[in-house]
Amino acid sequence: MENSALKTQMVELAREARAAARVLATLPTEAKNSALRHAAEGLIKSRALIESANATDLARGKEKGLSGPMLDRLRLDTRGIEKLAEGLHQVCALPDPVGKELSRNVRPNGLLLRRVRAPIGVLLIIFESRPNVTVEAAALCLKSGNACILRGGSEALATNRTLAKVLREAVAETAQPVPAAAINVVETADRAAIAELLKLEGLIDLVIPRGGESLIRMVAENTRIPTIKHYKGVCHVYVDEGADLNLAKTIALNSKLQRVAVCNAAETLLVHRQVAAAFLPEAAATLMEKGCELRVCPETKAILAAAGISNKLLQEATAETYYNEYLDRIMSVKIVPSLEAAADHIEQYGSRHTETIVTPSPERGRRFQALVDSACVFVNASTRLSDGFEFGLGAEIGISTDKLHARGPMGLEELTTYKWLGDGDGQLRT
Amino acid sequence: MENSALKTQMVELAREARAAARVLATLPTEAKNSALRHAAEGLIKSRALIESANATDLARGKEKGLSGPMLDRLRLDTRGIEKLAEGLHQVCALPDPVGKELSRNVRPNGLLLRRVRAPIGVLLIIFESRPNVTVEAAALCLKSGNACILRGGSEALATNRTLAKVLREAVAETAQPVPAAAINVVETADRAAIAELLKLEGLIDLVIPRGGESLIRMVAENTRIPTIKHYKGVCHVYVDEGADLNLAKTIALNSKLQRVAVCNAAETLLVHRQVAAAFLPEAAATLMEKGCELRVCPETKAILAAAGISNKLLQEATAETYYNEYLDRIMSVKIVPSLEAAADHIEQYGSRHTETIVTPSPERGRRFQALVDSACVFVNASTRLSDGFEFGLGAEIGISTDKLHARGPMGLEELTTYKWLGDGDGQLRT
Repeated sequence: MENSALKTQMVELAREARAAARVLATLPTEAKNSALRHAAEGLIKSRALIESANATDLARGKEKGLSGPMLDRLRLDTRGIEKLAEGLHQVCALPDPVGKELSRNVRPNGLLLRRVRAPIGVLLIIFESRPNVTVEAAALCLKSGNACILRGGSEALATNRTLAKVLREAVAETAQPVPAAAINVVETADRAAIAELLKLEGLIDLVIPRGGESLIRMVAENTRIPTIKHYKGVCHVYVDEGADLNLAKTIALNSKLQRVAVCNAAETLLVHRQVAAAFLPEAAATLMEKGCELRVCPETKAILAAAGISNKLLQEATAETYYNEYLDRIMSVKIVPSLEAAADHIEQYGSRHTETIVTPSPERGRRFQALVDSACVFVNASTRLSDGFEFGLGAEIGISTDKLHARGPMGLEELTTYKWLGDGDGQLRT
Repeated sequence: MENSALKTQMVELAREARAAARVLATLPTEAKNSALRHAAEGLIKSRALIESANATDLARGKEKGLSGPMLDRLRLDTRGIEKLAEGLHQVCALPDPVGKELSRNVRPNGLLLRRVRAPIGVLLIIFESRPNVTVEAAALCLKSGNACILRGGSEALATNRTLAKVLREAVAETAQPVPAAAINVVETADRAAIAELLKLEGLIDLVIPRGGESLIRMVAENTRIPTIKHYKGVCHVYVDEGADLNLAKTIALNSKLQRVAVCNAAETLLVHRQVAAAFLPEAAATLMEKGCELRVCPETKAILAAAGISNKLLQEATAETYYNEYLDRIMSVKIVPSLEAAADHIEQYGSRHTETIVTPSPERGRRFQALVDSACVFVNASTRLSDGFEFGLGAEIGISTDKLHARGPMGLEELTTYKWLGDGDGQLRT
């Protein structure tokens, strides 16, 4: 498409979304829930249409030579569509964050001052993953009173278009309708569309890129619209002096191996020198038995060698090792002289996502939580628990490794801002 | 200064601030308060030194031909220094936001999950105004556990340097000292220093530019560090149908004229057509009596002409009129057919700062508050009340017209983020 035509099209899309957001912002909860229920019905009714669009994407994907796992992620079958419909009903059941009072006080001059949650406005969500995200993100935005502009991967374009069409028609059909333009999918595979959208500072209020680090950096570097980012999950398990070594092993194994290709899986094991010789041989052997490669500091290597452990899965760490987010069955290991040194290591190499300490001492747990500047800091629990559903948020729009606005797992509330509302009877500034 | 030397110097400054922030983050409230009290004493003891530095700035300012009001803003005399010391004691008395629990719940697996306020880290505050801001901003950052890098106007450089020196020495002298590098003033007038600092995404967590729109745009356009902005205050007073016209006049006058060169002063008066003929002649006459120029829509002009009001302060509005932030004794006036039209006008021309409706109807007040997407939306109260002290925040670091992180007047809490802290006894992901 010609560039100026694309630009005009994207501006028009964002303007329509903005107008829809104004309507959506004042809709009562029941109208939004009704729209979500209609959307769920719409998905079920339009199953054949969606599956046929998905077949088109799958066929194109095969032609392009997408890998088996990639094709699996792209596939949306009857069961998948039913699950999406169930997800919409679950979002219905979540409390509406809009209008929730955050604070209330009466000023000395009699002004009643309240801080109340309000929608952010227009959200641009850019993602690479499965077409499911189109439905999940649209539902969470709708429930929180925000219009959304969704840009999924180009390999899922036909599916995403169809899903959006079904959702838009369904939500606009209710008694107190949600404007169709509350849900928008960018209907071109042209990557220049993203660049145009990222320029629309006055029309789009927030960008949430979900995907690999390169996508997120591309977005952050090309927009002045506020962005909530999630760069990496270099999560740490720190085994403190005096730790229960069985508990430490259990937490390290669960953090590293329960699921490896996810951001809250641990990448690095830090061990206090006091327990290193007692802890590391068995922990390392168990990790390697489970197929986990280890990249260890020289001190760890010596301890393992002394214990007679050598293995082709055992490698020496290099200077860069501790920055790695493996997302795989690989773990960095390092011995540290103190809790403070563990915190220093995390400050230097970590990504401010999630860390855990295994310690019998509540005081040392508190100290670790105070020293470590990450979104989630646990005591005696697996890093894998850093998750919107595990936290009881009822939903997860992503995990923020930023510090502003939202930190850690983001639910519906994190898709809102607030307003200060003042009710007076003639209060003036004196 | 050579560019690479300047760069090195700024990186070093930010690194030191970051290290100081880590210490500051875990200091107990009493240590921070003790540092603030020492700082207050330090200012009083070093009065002569500060006044002499200020005399240098004033002499340079006169040479450069700064205006009388500019020189007044630059001046820091004995009384001014005493007031700064009093201000430090007031910050002492504010509650410490760090460690405050925002939420607490026990998950089904037994994990105690708490959301707790934490410092943001290193804040860069760029301002144009009086040297007082150096002391006020340093105190608010210190109390909220953040290290600060302050860059004031070049005309106040000698004063700001001296203030920073006094503060740094004082806070580092206490029993549990605050590192001197928690408070930093950029000690060069070279504007390139700002450009270098704005590049330090990994070292600086937040930028707060305080000043005119051009400063704020320059900052926002030259950094990827999150920025909290305050562009303009195009605030509206909307007089609804059925309004008490005396109340409406009082609120309009106070909003416009109580102090004109401030962001929460009203710039535009919107009047429902139903009350326009009864309200506008007297309101306009009173505004003009007080020296306020009016830029009015044709319908308003006709009503005033019919009432025999003509005045050289009366002008016709143009297409651009309603975007104006006058910061002066000038007001735009427009008649609207409905509350919804008033909200539409505010959406198009406003700056999302503060608006007020004068109405006898609580329902219409609520509707206006729901429709208008601004930081502060009042019913029957002056826009001038949109202020950190009036809101009882005890301090004001600025007013945000952004929607992310902080909106409206910002106090100490807005200088914090949060952490998720989880306390377990072996919880795993299953």
